[in-house]
Amino acid sequence: MIDLKNDLLLRALRKEKVERPPVWMMRQAGRYLPDYIKLRNKYDFFTRVQTPELATQITLQPIDQVGVDAAIIFSDILVIPQAMGLEVLMEEGKGPSLPKVIQSEKDIDALNTADAAHHLKYVLDALSLTKKELNGRVPLIGFAGAPWTILCYMVEGKGSKTWDKAKQFAYTQPELAHALLQKITTITIDYLKAQAAAGADVVQVFDSWAGSLSPQDFKTFAQPYLLQISDAVSGSAPVILFPKGTWHALEDLSKSSASGIGIDWTITPQKARELAGNNITLQGNFDPAKLLAPIPQIKQWVKEMIDEFGTRNYIANLGHGITPNVPVDHAKAFVDAVKEYRQN
Amino acid sequence: MIDLKNDLLLRALRKEKVERPPVWMMRQAGRYLPDYIKLRNKYDFFTRVQTPELATQITLQPIDQVGVDAAIIFSDILVIPQAMGLEVLMEEGKGPSLPKVIQSEKDIDALNTADAAHHLKYVLDALSLTKKELNGRVPLIGFAGAPWTILCYMVEGKGSKTWDKAKQFAYTQPELAHALLQKITTITIDYLKAQAAAGADVVQVFDSWAGSLSPQDFKTFAQPYLLQISDAVSGSAPVILFPKGTWHALEDLSKSSASGIGIDWTITPQKARELAGNNITLQGNFDPAKLLAPIPQIKQWVKEMIDEFGTRNYIANLGHGITPNVPVDHAKAFVDAVKEYRQN
Repeated sequence: MIDLKNDLLLRALRKEKVERPPVWMMRQAGRYLPDYIKLRNKYDFFTRVQTPELATQITLQPIDQVGVDAAIIFSDILVIPQAMGLEVLMEEGKGPSLPKVIQSEKDIDALNTADAAHHLKYVLDALSLTKKELNGRVPLIGFAGAPWTILCYMVEGKGSKTWDKAKQFAYTQPELAHALLQKITTITIDYLKAQAAAGADVVQVFDSWAGSLSPQDFKTFAQPYLLQISDAVSGSAPVILFPKGTWHALEDLSKSSASGIGIDWTITPQKARELAGNNITLQGNFDPAKLLAPIPQIKQWVKEMIDEFGTRNYIANLGHGITPNVPVDHAKAFVDAVKEYRQN
Repeated sequence: MIDLKNDLLLRALRKEKVERPPVWMMRQAGRYLPDYIKLRNKYDFFTRVQTPELATQITLQPIDQVGVDAAIIFSDILVIPQAMGLEVLMEEGKGPSLPKVIQSEKDIDALNTADAAHHLKYVLDALSLTKKELNGRVPLIGFAGAPWTILCYMVEGKGSKTWDKAKQFAYTQPELAHALLQKITTITIDYLKAQAAAGADVVQVFDSWAGSLSPQDFKTFAQPYLLQISDAVSGSAPVILFPKGTWHALEDLSKSSASGIGIDWTITPQKARELAGNNITLQGNFDPAKLLAPIPQIKQWVKEMIDEFGTRNYIANLGHGITPNVPVDHAKAFVDAVKEYRQN
């Protein structure tokens, strides 16, 4: 066990006092980094994900180049459908697609939920290798997609603006939807526990399409599974839940076993604090499009964001993934601004 | 002047007592209707929009076939960029695109803001003709896109998940963004007043991408222009504002000169009422994906929705446009359920 030299993220998740908030960026290891693009031009997506040496190399890039306070393993949320037996294709620039979608009870019965650690050994190997290479510099974050978001892809077969088919499935065959959500939850719990055992210091659950649901449908089809995962995994590693676009659930989720909640920029820090209380650490919520503004402006906005969140119980981050068109020095300015933060 | 036989919509917007809430559906005239698809196969998009007889025919289809309490003119929000001098292409099934986008002060200076009624005479003719054909059966709704949403298309050149370029423009060149927003606002006010003069009983302003902005950026780049339009037009016709995804603005907007606010399904009716008070009529907020459920289930959900909103100061509608895959009898079931509503 190597002692962490920078444990800001873990202390923030434990709600301890910190000199300044920790900072990392969703999708920090990826397509805005020239060194990543070089690897992308050489190896296809799943080769990069499934080769521990490549995944580790990509995971480490933003640590050295941007200076974030945490590494997040380079992987994809759709490794879970793969582990469950579904084919997933990833066409560069076009997003993922699943040639065979889930439609019936028979489809769900055929899904595997066992041996996550065996099927996704390459992720665990990448975590162990990254952990070793990090050598205690910063904590390592593992992750998985939330059950509702994974269901969306499994039923829809590809990205969607409205997630019609996924919703039709859930609204018209709720028993099947719950059976599928439970299967995804079961394997995800095993997977996240295995990630913690392999070296993940923290795990984040991405519910990217949670915001497509009404508050009531979120409570029916998303929240129970997020809580189940959080309850089962939080003994192994602190859990951050990121159900994008669900300001309405903040109050409930703040009382959960999770250590942190990610929020996007469609809620003010003040309102988020008001809803979540100081029960939980909040993470976010910079609009990634703001990273396209001039550097002095970015730094000013970051300062204002931290002023509003406060330095306690807070992890500076974007409100969603960094976009490919962000210049690296702008990403670095975001991180630098957090590091330079001083309260007035 | 023909007396309206069904003036439920107007009475709801005046906050008068009604026997039951009025009901209409966003995109009710369009691609889920077989008779519309027949016309689509014969005439391209802008022919349908620019030929008053066709626009009228399409506008009337859901009145007879689905039984809604209002007609909304068949048109498009991108007629405003066209009237301002930009080319807009519409490829069936692929969404709109603008070959020349706005990038500079010079681009903005070159935009026309005069003679909306001349440039968009075909819309006004369609309104007059529809009004005549309706013969007082139900009120007629005119509409326009909100300035922020129109800016999104003018700067981005096409639809986007993140509206990066539009936001980059607004965040890095706010003076230019405000100049552009003001120009769009100016011509939109003239256009909506002309619509009222041509026969629109109500006008709705669609801010479809308002939800991509943070609460503060909405207050900067969207809200002032929505209010300007509402203040200028509400003397000519009642105004409904629909800034999708901006629950955070409900309280402010409820104090505006608008008669109604459209809301989507990511807020509960109770919460919306709590934020808006009874200052304003609320419109919405059925998840269009729920129209894919079995008819008895749709009817049950509609009943619950009205129970929650209450019958006063309320217009039953979807929370966004109806999707092409909705069976006509399901759309009709939605409307019927509102008409059959009885309080317990």
